[in-house]
Amino acid sequence: MLHPLTVEPIIRAALAEDLGRAGDITTDSIIPADAIATARIAARKDGRVAGLDAALIAFRLLDPAVTVEIAVADGGDVRPGGIIATLSGSARALLTAERTALNVMGRLSGIATATRALVREVDGTKARIVCTRKTTPGLRVLEKHAVKLGGGFNHRFGLDDAVLIKDNHIAVAGGVRAAVERVRATIGHMVKVEVEVDTLDQLDELLGLPVDVVLLDNMDPDTLRRAVRMIDGRLLAEASGNVTLATVRAIAETGVDMISCGWLTHSAPNLDLGLDM
Amino acid sequence: MLHPLTVEPIIRAALAEDLGRAGDITTDSIIPADAIATARIAARKDGRVAGLDAALIAFRLLDPAVTVEIAVADGGDVRPGGIIATLSGSARALLTAERTALNVMGRLSGIATATRALVREVDGTKARIVCTRKTTPGLRVLEKHAVKLGGGFNHRFGLDDAVLIKDNHIAVAGGVRAAVERVRATIGHMVKVEVEVDTLDQLDELLGLPVDVVLLDNMDPDTLRRAVRMIDGRLLAEASGNVTLATVRAIAETGVDMISCGWLTHSAPNLDLGLDM
Amino acid sequence: MLHPLTVEPIIRAALAEDLGRAGDITTDSIIPADAIATARIAARKDGRVAGLDAALIAFRLLDPAVTVEIAVADGGDVRPGGIIATLSGSARALLTAERTALNVMGRLSGIATATRALVREVDGTKARIVCTRKTTPGLRVLEKHAVKLGGGFNHRFGLDDAVLIKDNHIAVAGGVRAAVERVRATIGHMVKVEVEVDTLDQLDELLGLPVDVVLLDNMDPDTLRRAVRMIDGRLLAEASGNVTLATVRAIAETGVDMISCGWLTHSAPNLDLGLDM
Amino acid sequence: MLHPLTVEPIIRAALAEDLGRAGDITTDSIIPADAIATARIAARKDGRVAGLDAALIAFRLLDPAVTVEIAVADGGDVRPGGIIATLSGSARALLTAERTALNVMGRLSGIATATRALVREVDGTKARIVCTRKTTPGLRVLEKHAVKLGGGFNHRFGLDDAVLIKDNHIAVAGGVRAAVERVRATIGHMVKVEVEVDTLDQLDELLGLPVDVVLLDNMDPDTLRRAVRMIDGRLLAEASGNVTLATVRAIAETGVDMISCGWLTHSAPNLDLGLDM
Amino acid sequence: MLHPLTVEPIIRAALAEDLGRAGDITTDSIIPADAIATARIAARKDGRVAGLDAALIAFRLLDPAVTVEIAVADGGDVRPGGIIATLSGSARALLTAERTALNVMGRLSGIATATRALVREVDGTKARIVCTRKTTPGLRVLEKHAVKLGGGFNHRFGLDDAVLIKDNHIAVAGGVRAAVERVRATIGHMVKVEVEVDTLDQLDELLGLPVDVVLLDNMDPDTLRRAVRMIDGRLLAEASGNVTLATVRAIAETGVDMISCGWLTHSAPNLDLGLDM
Amino acid sequence: MLHPLTVEPIIRAALAEDLGRAGDITTDSIIPADAIATARIAARKDGRVAGLDAALIAFRLLDPAVTVEIAVADGGDVRPGGIIATLSGSARALLTAERTALNVMGRLSGIATATRALVREVDGTKARIVCTRKTTPGLRVLEKHAVKLGGGFNHRFGLDDAVLIKDNHIAVAGGVRAAVERVRATIGHMVKVEVEVDTLDQLDELLGLPVDVVLLDNMDPDTLRRAVRMIDGRLLAEASGNVTLATVRAIAETGVDMISCGWLTHSAPNLDLGLDM
Repeated sequence: MLHPLTVEPIIRAALAEDLGRAGDITTDSIIPADAIATARIAARKDGRVAGLDAALIAFRLLDPAVTVEIAVADGGDVRPGGIIATLSGSARALLTAERTALNVMGRLSGIATATRALVREVDGTKARIVCTRKTTPGLRVLEKHAVKLGGGFNHRFGLDDAVLIKDNHIAVAGGVRAAVERVRATIGHMVKVEVEVDTLDQLDELLGLPVDVVLLDNMDPDTLRRAVRMIDGRLLAEASGNVTLATVRAIAETGVDMISCGWLTHSAPNLDLGLDM
Repeated sequence: MLHPLTVEPIIRAALAEDLGRAGDITTDSIIPADAIATARIAARKDGRVAGLDAALIAFRLLDPAVTVEIAVADGGDVRPGGIIATLSGSARALLTAERTALNVMGRLSGIATATRALVREVDGTKARIVCTRKTTPGLRVLEKHAVKLGGGFNHRFGLDDAVLIKDNHIAVAGGVRAAVERVRATIGHMVKVEVEVDTLDQLDELLGLPVDVVLLDNMDPDTLRRAVRMIDGRLLAEASGNVTLATVRAIAETGVDMISCGWLTHSAPNLDLGLDM
Repeated sequence: MLHPLTVEPIIRAALAEDLGRAGDITTDSIIPADAIATARIAARKDGRVAGLDAALIAFRLLDPAVTVEIAVADGGDVRPGGIIATLSGSARALLTAERTALNVMGRLSGIATATRALVREVDGTKARIVCTRKTTPGLRVLEKHAVKLGGGFNHRFGLDDAVLIKDNHIAVAGGVRAAVERVRATIGHMVKVEVEVDTLDQLDELLGLPVDVVLLDNMDPDTLRRAVRMIDGRLLAEASGNVTLATVRAIAETGVDMISCGWLTHSAPNLDLGLDM
Repeated sequence: MLHPLTVEPIIRAALAEDLGRAGDITTDSIIPADAIATARIAARKDGRVAGLDAALIAFRLLDPAVTVEIAVADGGDVRPGGIIATLSGSARALLTAERTALNVMGRLSGIATATRALVREVDGTKARIVCTRKTTPGLRVLEKHAVKLGGGFNHRFGLDDAVLIKDNHIAVAGGVRAAVERVRATIGHMVKVEVEVDTLDQLDELLGLPVDVVLLDNMDPDTLRRAVRMIDGRLLAEASGNVTLATVRAIAETGVDMISCGWLTHSAPNLDLGLDM
Repeated sequence: MLHPLTVEPIIRAALAEDLGRAGDITTDSIIPADAIATARIAARKDGRVAGLDAALIAFRLLDPAVTVEIAVADGGDVRPGGIIATLSGSARALLTAERTALNVMGRLSGIATATRALVREVDGTKARIVCTRKTTPGLRVLEKHAVKLGGGFNHRFGLDDAVLIKDNHIAVAGGVRAAVERVRATIGHMVKVEVEVDTLDQLDELLGLPVDVVLLDNMDPDTLRRAVRMIDGRLLAEASGNVTLATVRAIAETGVDMISCGWLTHSAPNLDLGLDM
Repeated sequence: MLHPLTVEPIIRAALAEDLGRAGDITTDSIIPADAIATARIAARKDGRVAGLDAALIAFRLLDPAVTVEIAVADGGDVRPGGIIATLSGSARALLTAERTALNVMGRLSGIATATRALVREVDGTKARIVCTRKTTPGLRVLEKHAVKLGGGFNHRFGLDDAVLIKDNHIAVAGGVRAAVERVRATIGHMVKVEVEVDTLDQLDELLGLPVDVVLLDNMDPDTLRRAVRMIDGRLLAEASGNVTLATVRAIAETGVDMISCGWLTHSAPNLDLGLDM
C-alpha cells in the first residue's frame, strides 16, 4: 500500500508545477468561487485503473470538501467509456486539478494496463512479470505500485535494497567468485544477491556461489530452458531482454521464475482518460 | 535554455530516489573507491539527443572531477551505435549514476525523437508542432525543453501563463463572449487568450472577440481548411486531436499555424541508450 | 485568486522565522494553554485591505479551531479605527501569530492602498495601473495579488511568462528587428512580446515589427502623446518612469493603455494595523 | 556577519521565483550563450550600501566564474551616480540576475540608509537606534543585518530569544509581578526580560522586579525624561512610538538607552539602484 | 511549549526515514487495511515521560482518526510496567508508526529521566540543572524540551541567542576585557553575555566587566566555593565539568546558580518503552 | 560508503540549527574575518573513530578552503589524547563549526566504539553483531554506518527493504503459515523474510516455511543452543534480547549467526572528543 504520506508530496509538487505563480487564471476569472460542479473521470480506452488514489489527492488539496464516489478502484478494470469515479465539489477545484490528476492517473494506468497484458500472456506458467529501475525520475514508488496493480511484481526499489552484480563489477573484481565474496563480506543478512550472466559458461561458474538469484540476460528460449535445467531450483531464475507481448509467452514457458521488463515503466503509453463535467 | 539551477534539484532528487538510504551497496562493496574508469553513452537506436546536459549533472554530483567529451550535444542526431559522450572519472560514480542518467536522457531523447518525426512530416508547411500540459508530473520543464530540441515549440507551461477557455468555462459563463469579457477584465496585458471551439458555428461566434488564438479541436482536415479560411489571419489557428505521424501532414496542409499533440510528452517511448564501460 | 496551497508555505515559513527554536517563550510562560481570547484586527489609518486571507492562515496554523468574523474582506476599504476581522480562539495562538499576521497584512494592505490612490487618480481615463517585477524576494505572488486588490493590474510574473526586450538586448542583437526576429523564432505562440523604447525614433523603427506592446520609458507627457498618435492602436502602449501621485494623471491623459510603477511594490509604506485583544 | 550558508537559500529562492519554469526567455533567445559583458551596479541616489554580498550571490549562482570589483562594500556610503561594484562575466547571467540582485540590494540599502539618517540625528547622545520584529516575512535576517550596516542595533530576532511582556500578558497574569514571576520560573538564565509600560505608575510598579529592560511606549519627551530619572540606571530604558526624523533627537535627549522604530524595516523606501552594462 | 508546527516536520521526516520507498511491506502484506486495534505504550523501567506529544504525531500522521487516552502526560512519572497511553485506530497505522514513535519517546524520556535524577540530587540547594548545546543533530528543540520536562532548565539554544566567550576568543582578542568590549559594541541589548574562566585569577579579571554570567569550568568544590564568594551575587555563577550523580550534590552546595551537564543530552540512555497490542 | 550527497543535507541542517538566525554572534564580534587558525580534533578517551568524514563537511561548508590532515580515518582506533585530524583555515569557521562537528562525531564514534567492544567479545565465534531500527530520528544512515565502522553489520534500514514478521502480525493472520503466505504472495523476489519466535514450539512450526531468517527473541543460551540444532543450517539464526558486554559471549557460543542489539544505536554514550586550537 502506498501511504498518502508518501504520495501527497509528489501530487503537491505536480499541482504547484501547473499552478505556477498566478494559479489557474482562466478558471479564476470565469468561474465563481462558490460554484459547485460534478465531474466524472472516465476511460476512453480499455485498461487497468491505477493512480486513482493519487489523483484524488489533487482534487482534495484544492477542495478538502470534495466528495468522491468510486466506481472502479485502483486495480480494477475499465472499458472504453467506463466511469471510474464521480466527484462533486468546487467547480474551480475540479477544473484546476483536472490536468494534474489525469497526468498522474493516465501514466500509472498505462503502466498497469501494459503489465496486465504481459501477465495475462504468461497465465498458467509460474513466471512472474517484474519491473526494473528504468522508471521516471521522481515517480518510482508510484510506477512500481502501478506494476503491482497490473498483476506484476517489483524488483529492487533502488541501489540500496538488494545487490545486483553486473559484468562491470565482475571485471573489476577479477571474477564472479571474488565479486560475490566482497559483497558477502560487506552486506547485511537481510539483503539478497543477484548476479547477471550472459552465457551458460558464466552460469556454470556461478552455481555453487552464495547467491540468491541469477539474471539470465538476453538469452533465447532454448538457452533459457537449458539454464533453468542447470539451475535446478538452487537459485531463482530471472530472464530479461527483448521482452514483448509477442515473446513473453515463449520465455515464460522455459520455466524461469521471473521475467523483467523495463518497457513497462519507461515506455508504456498513457491510458487515455478524460474528465467529463 | 534550461539553467542548471532549475535542473539540478530534479537530478539530485532522482539520484536520492535511487541511492535510498544505504547507497549503491553493490558497487561500494566491489569497486575500490579510487578506481578510475571510462564510459561511453551510446545510442542503440536512431534518434534526437535530449537530456545530455541533465544527465551529466548526475555524474558530476557524484564525482565533481569527471571529465566529459561530448560527441553529439543536446539537439543533435545520433545513429544506432553512435557515441553521444565519453566520460572519465570515478568508476563508482559512473556505475552509481548510470541508471539515473539514462532514465532522464532516455525519456527526454524519446520525446525529442518523436517530435522530430512530426516536425519532419510537416516540413514545407507553416505549421509548428507544439506540445501540451500532458507532461509527466515533476518533469514539465525538462519535457518541454525536449520538445524544442526536437524542433517543436511550447504551448503554455502552466495554468498561469496564458488563458485557455474551454467548453466548461463557456458553459458556466453563459457564452463565449461573457467568458472572454470576464477574462479580459481580470488578466494582465502580457497574457494571451486562446479559446477552444469544436464547430464552425462556435468559431463564427468567436471571431470579433478580443482573443489571440483559437484551438480547433478534433476537426477533420476539410473542416480545418474551412476554419482557416474563416479566420483569415485574424487569429492564430491551432489544431488538436488525433494527431499521429499518419495524420499530421494532412492537418498541416490545411493551413493551421500550430498542431498540438499530447502524445509527445505522455506516451513517446524512451530512446534506447546504454552506458558502455 | 491566490490558492491557500500557494500562500500557506509562505506563511508557515514566516511563522517559523518568528518562532525560532524555542517558540514564544513569553506567551507560553504566562498564558495558560487553555486560555481563550478574542482579538480584533483593526486599521489605524485609512486604507484598502489586502492580505487578510493570508494573515488568517497564520492564526489557523497555530489554532485550527479559531473562528473568524470578517468585517472588511480583502479588497474592501477601511477607515482609521475600523475593524477588519474579529478572531476567537486560543489566547496563545492569537498572541503568537499576531506579529506574523500583521507583518504580512500591513505590507500587502500598504501596497493595495498605494495602488488604490493611483487608480483613483487616473479615473475616467483608459489607463490601467500595472506593477513590475520590482517586488520583495519571496513575496511576489502576494504583492502582485495586492496590486489587483488595489484596483491595478499585473505585468509579467517573471522572466519566463512574457518577453520584454530592453536596450541591452537590442545592442547585442544589432538592432530591434534582429532582436524581435530571434525572439519570434524561439518562443511559443502563447507568449506576448514587449519592447522598450526611449525615443520616438526607436518607436518608429519598432512599428511594423511583430510585437504586442511597447514600453515608453521616461517620456514626458508631450512625447507620450505623440507616441500614442504614432502607435495609433497598432500596439498596446505602456508608460513608465517617474510615476507618482502628482504625475500620474497627466501621464494617463496622454492616452497610454498602461502606466507601470515599481514604487507600488518596493516602496509603498505599510498600512498601520493593530491587533486589539 | 551573515554567513552565505544562511543567505544563499533566500537568494536561490528569489531567483527561482523570477526564473519560473522556462527561465529568462528574452535573454536566452537573443543573447548568445558565450557572450561576455561588464556591468556596473550604481546608485541613483545618496545612500548607505547594504545587501551587496547577498546580491553577488545571485550573479554567482548563474555564473560561478563572474569576477567582481567592489568599489563600495556593504556598510559604505555612496553618492548619486556612484559605482558600487563592477561585474564581468556571462552576459546572460548578468541580465538574468539583474532584477533579483537589485530587488534585494535596493530593499536592504533602503533600510540601511533610513537607519543611517536616524543614527546621525541622535549623534552625541547615548541612544542606540534599534529595529523591531516588524520585518518582511522571510527576510528578517537580511533586514536586521541592514539595520546594523546603517549604524543601528538589533532587538529580538524572534519570539524565542528574549522575553517581552506586554499589556495582554500582564492582564492575563493578573499583574506585572505575577507575569514576571511566571517568566522567571520558566526561562533559562541566558534570556533577558523586557516589560512594556505606558505610564509612570506602571513603571513604578515594575522597578524592583527582576527585569532587564523597560519599554517606554508612546511617551512624550517630558514623560520619558521623568521615566529615565525614576529608573536611575537600574534598567535599560527603551523608547518606542512615533519615532521619526523630526522627533528622534528630542527622544534621544531624554536619556533613554535605546529608541526602537518599526518603520526602518517595514516602510523604508528602496534605495534607487541600477545595473549599467 | 513545543508547538506541533515545530515538531511535526521532525516526526514526518523520521517516519519517511523508516517507511523508505515501499512502506511497511510486512504489515501491508498481512494486516487488512480496515483492521482496528488497540495498543498501549508502556514503560519497562521507572522514568519521567517526555516525547509523548511528539510520538502521538507519528500515529496521527498515519491515521488521523486514531483516538488516544493519556494516562501519564509529558512531564509525569511512570513505574516499570506502567501504562503511559492507550491508542485505538488502524492496526496498520499502529504497527507502522510504532518504531518511530518509540524511538523519539525513548530518547526524550531517557533525557528527562536523567535530568530528574540530577534535579532530585540537588534538591534544597538553589542550583538549577541546565543542559548544553551538546545535543543530537536535528533534535535540539526536542531534547532541550525534555530537559525541562525533567525539571532542568535550558542554556543557549544556539550560537545566536546569547554570547559565550571562551578561551580561544579571549586569546585572539588579547584579553578578556577586549573580548567583552568587542562583543558589547556589536550585540543587541536583549542578549546576555557569559564568559568562561578556568581559574580564580581569570575570575578576578572578569569581575567589574559588563557581563551577566560566568562559567566556572572544571573547578573542584573548594575552588567553586571561593569563586562564589568572590562573585558575591554580582554575576550568575554556572559550574560545569565532571558533573555526575555522584558529584552534583557537592557542586550544588558550593552555592553556584547553575550546573550544566552535556551528558544529559548526548549520552543519557533511552528509557525502555514498549508498545503492547 | 556514505556518499556526501546523502550526508551533506544532514550536516547542513545541523549547522543551521546551531547558527539560528543571527549566526555565531560571539565569534563574529571578536574574531576578525580574515584570522587563520589551526585546530586539532583529539580524543579524550579510547575509542573507534566514526563520523570524521561527516564532521569535516561542517567545516568545509563554512570555509571551503579549509585544509585537513587526517591522522586516524573513520574506522581507525584512537587512544586518549590521540589526535584524529588537524585542520587549518578560517578561525571563525573552525570556532563556529566546532560544536556541530563534535556532536556528530562524538555520537557516531560512541556507537562505533560500543560496537567494537561487542565485536571483540565474540571474536572467534561465527556470530555477527548487528544493529536494529532503534536509531535516532533523522540519523539512521549515519548510525548504521557507524555500526559498520565498529565492525558490526546492518539489519534492515527501514520497513520497506525486508520483511520481519512479529507476533502481532501472526496473531492477525491466524498463524505463522498464513502470515508467511500472505507475504510471499505480495513481496518481490529480492526481499528477504524473517520471522520472530519466542519459543521452540514456534520455531518448530516455522521450519519448513519459505523464510530466510529466524529471530530468536529473549531466549537463554541453552534454549538458543537447542534452537540452533533444530534449525540445522536451514535458516539464518538471529538472537536478540538482553545483549550486553557481559552476556554476548555466551550467546555467540550457542552457534547463532547474528546477535542484534538496539543499545548500540539508542544508548551508547558519546565518545569524548575535543577541538584544541
